[in-house]
Formats: sequence, structure tokens, C-alpha cells
Amino acid sequence: MPHRNISPDSPIGIFDSGIGGLTVVKAVQACLPSERIIYFGDTARVPYGPKSRVTIRRYAREDTEILMKHQPKMIIVACNTVSALALDVVEETAGDIPVIGVLKAGAELAARRTGTGKIGVIGTQATIGSNAYACAIQDQNEELEVISKACPLFVPLAEEGFIDHPATRLVAEEYLAEILGRNIDTLVLGCTHYPILRGMIERIVGPGITIIDSAEAVAGRARDLLREQGLLNCGSSKAVPHLLVSDLPQKFRELYRLFMGTEMPDVELIGL
Amino acid sequence: MPHRNISPDSPIGIFDSGIGGLTVVKAVQACLPSERIIYFGDTARVPYGPKSRVTIRRYAREDTEILMKHQPKMIIVACNTVSALALDVVEETAGDIPVIGVLKAGAELAARRTGTGKIGVIGTQATIGSNAYACAIQDQNEELEVISKACPLFVPLAEEGFIDHPATRLVAEEYLAEILGRNIDTLVLGCTHYPILRGMIERIVGPGITIIDSAEAVAGRARDLLREQGLLNCGSSKAVPHLLVSDLPQKFRELYRLFMGTEMPDVELIGL
Repeated sequence: MPHRNISPDSPIGIFDSGIGGLTVVKAVQACLPSERIIYFGDTARVPYGPKSRVTIRRYAREDTEILMKHQPKMIIVACNTVSALALDVVEETAGDIPVIGVLKAGAELAARRTGTGKIGVIGTQATIGSNAYACAIQDQNEELEVISKACPLFVPLAEEGFIDHPATRLVAEEYLAEILGRNIDTLVLGCTHYPILRGMIERIVGPGITIIDSAEAVAGRARDLLREQGLLNCGSSKAVPHLLVSDLPQKFRELYRLFMGTEMPDVELIGL
Repeated sequence: MPHRNISPDSPIGIFDSGIGGLTVVKAVQACLPSERIIYFGDTARVPYGPKSRVTIRRYAREDTEILMKHQPKMIIVACNTVSALALDVVEETAGDIPVIGVLKAGAELAARRTGTGKIGVIGTQATIGSNAYACAIQDQNEELEVISKACPLFVPLAEEGFIDHPATRLVAEEYLAEILGRNIDTLVLGCTHYPILRGMIERIVGPGITIIDSAEAVAGRARDLLREQGLLNCGSSKAVPHLLVSDLPQKFRELYRLFMGTEMPDVELIGL
């Protein structure tokens, strides 16, 4: 039953540790162009990937509370690290508002797509260390085999704009070599920054491997769930996302352009 | 006049945005082996380098307050970013306890060492963007010329242990090319992580350029100031540093070993 304060016109709340979750905003906009989106990026404490479970869970609660003030009809956890280590915290804080995380959506899609049953997953230290992707994929089918690899340098390389740089290629070849030796046919991009490096990753893994972008997967899952609940926004206007951030660094505008391909709208800076 | 609660036996407080400031701890231990050191690393909010001035100043106040609870006889700001953007905040919070920052110490040493009067400085986005090294060097002698370059990938590369990696070499060559074209004879490592990559940097810049490690510079400055104030600890015991952190990630032990070359002692986790 839908929550008493929400309607098809309520916004979809999306949050991430920083700016990476904008890849999810972009995918949701492409899939659901009439939806109002409110996005929170915790730019004052980014990144979450190298931090501990305890700290990530505390941040996840605070991030959810910020979005809840805007009465969303759904919360999308764009951060793979939070999806891996603190989805229960988000669900508890969101009460009866549905919560979906990039991780489960990506895991479900990978399980559907694989033919050989061998799936590779790349992500941050915390996401990979948690083993959450492997668990979520094996929840779908326990015979699937998951080979995971943490790729900590992909986020800073993407943010530095080293998209087609030879240094990025060297790092990516080294990170991916281990996974590629294991005959996977599907590779999950288990971090919101990685779609920025998708071209490079595709060239290294070759055409025989299907890339799963968890951002696209979660957008499809959001559409299905809103439809089921009668909460799709059927208007025809195209809304600009409402952006909240905990810090507004000098580089933000440039990163927004890198992730969204458009100029940055107004941004609201909030204290934590 | 020394503060009423402090004595030669009081600790030296040192803080940094994360673990990088351990290079300062190591330099202070080498220079002042009998001093008790209390170190705070803000590992829950690291890194500061890509964040805004407002946020860095707020964090600097909170970090100083944490150290002040331990009644230090001196505070050393091991973080170049805080030294560049918030030294006044630290001084205000520390009251009559002397505060010294890595930045001024490194700038003074570089100004003394240069022969040609052309000095290169490398650091984080925030440090270089603030122009604080250039100002501090020109405070010593306004005819000195300063050429600066932000090197945002050096911190993640060092933390990933890519010390002698070809990718690090490619990145370093690209970052340093601009500076090397300008005939500097002195290069300041304006970030506490960079001493980890010193070997690589030295090989690229060649023997004609003197490297200034701000960590060593600040340790020398601390010794001189404590001597002047009659606050040197003349004991002969060698103390293990007391470590405080705001987050204790999985990788902390490994990073401690990388920075200090010894096994990690007990660490105290504190809430912010």
C-alpha cells in the first residue's frame, strides 16, 4: 500500500557518497524522463569505498535522513558501497518508503544474462571486501560462480579525467588480468564511477564479455516497481534534478559535466 | 611564556586528514626521539585535498579540538591542505599553544636552499589552488619564482602501493613535465604522501634538483622552537606514538607499515 504522503508527483530520492551516483541519475532520467529527482551527494565525506563498515553505516543513515525530509516516493541507493554494507540501515530509516540499491539490481541482471555461469565483479575495496555482490548473485542461482576484484584507482583516475590515458590502461590491464584468466562471460561494473571508464574496460575485456552497468539495471528496476505501485509520473515535462551536496569543491562543475554531459544546474549546499 | 599546564613532558600533538601525516611523525621521531607524540588522523573524512575551503576550515577546528584535550605543548599541522587554508583556525583553537604547519616550514627551507631562485611545488588540488606555498616562499624573498602543479593521483597511487609501478611513472612524468620545463633547482613535496613516491620523483627530476620534504623541514622547526621555549623533552626513553583515528578501515594496518616501516601499535578510534 502506498504511503499516505506520497503520490506519482513525489520525487525519487537518490544518494551516493559523492558525485559518482550521477551515472544513476542519468540512467533514471533516460528510463523515466518525467520523474522529479532529488539527489544527495555526500561530497564532504567522499569516498566511502576505503572506509570501515561502522562508518559507512553511520553515513548511510544520515544520507537517508536528508532525503526523507523531501518526502520521496522511493529511495535509490546509487552507492555500491552503501548497497553492499548498509542497505538494511537505509530501509530502516526510510520506514515504509521502498528502497532499491544498485547492487541487487546489478546482481539480478548479471544472473539473467550470463550463459556460462561465470560472472566477474569489480568495485571499491569495501564493496568487494563485503562479498555482497557474490551473495546477491548466488541468491539468484547458487550455481553461479563469481570472481571479484577491487579496483581502488579507477575512481581517482576517472575523476582526474584520465579516461583514455595510457596510465589508466596499464592499471586496468593489471586489475582485470586476474578476472580475465577465469573465463567469465559477464562483468559487473560495481561502482558508479566505472561507467566513465567503460570504453577502456570494454577494449581490454573484448567483445566476448557482456558488461553490466548497475546504474542502468537499477533504473529499470525503479521503473518496474513504480509501475507496480501505481506511482509512475505520467506527466510530459522533463525536470532538472534537484542537487544537494555536503561540500561544493572547485572541481564540482567540471565533474558534473563529465558525468552528466550537460551544464550543472543550481546546487544546494547543506550542513551535516 | 609557556602555558601553565604544559611541561617538557607534555606531548607534541600532530594531525592530518588521514594517514599521510605519519611521514611527519616519522621525521619528528627521527629528530626528537624522546618526545611523546599524539597523532590524530581524520580517516573518516579523508581526503581533504579535493574539498572546499569552508569544509576544510571546519574540519581543521574539530581536529585541533581533539588534540587540545590531550594538553599538548605544541601542535604540528601535518596536513598541507590545512596548513594552506586553515592555519589561522588551528591557531585560534589552540589558544596560546604554539602551532607550526608543514607548509611554512617547507617554504622556508626551500627559500634557503635554492640557488637559481626558481622553486617547484607539488601538492593536492586545494593546496596548489590556494597559492599558499607561493605566498609563503615569496614572504621569505619576493624575488623567488614559484612554479606549482597539483598532482591529485599521487595520493591514491601511493596508498595502492604502486610505488615503482609503470603507471605511476607515466602519471608522474606527465605531472612533472610542466615544472621541469621551467628550470627549477628545488622541488617541494607539498603533500605528506609524496615522500612515499620520493624515489620515483627523484629519478624523473634528476640529480640537479634538490627535493625538499616538508615533513623533515617541520621536524627541524619543531626542535628549534621547543629548544627556544625550554620545552624539549630530555628523557632517554623512546615512546611509541599514541594514535587516534576517526575511522579504522581494513587497510589501515598495511598503510601504517607502508608509512612507518614498523608494525602498527594500538589505535584509539574516536567519534566525531
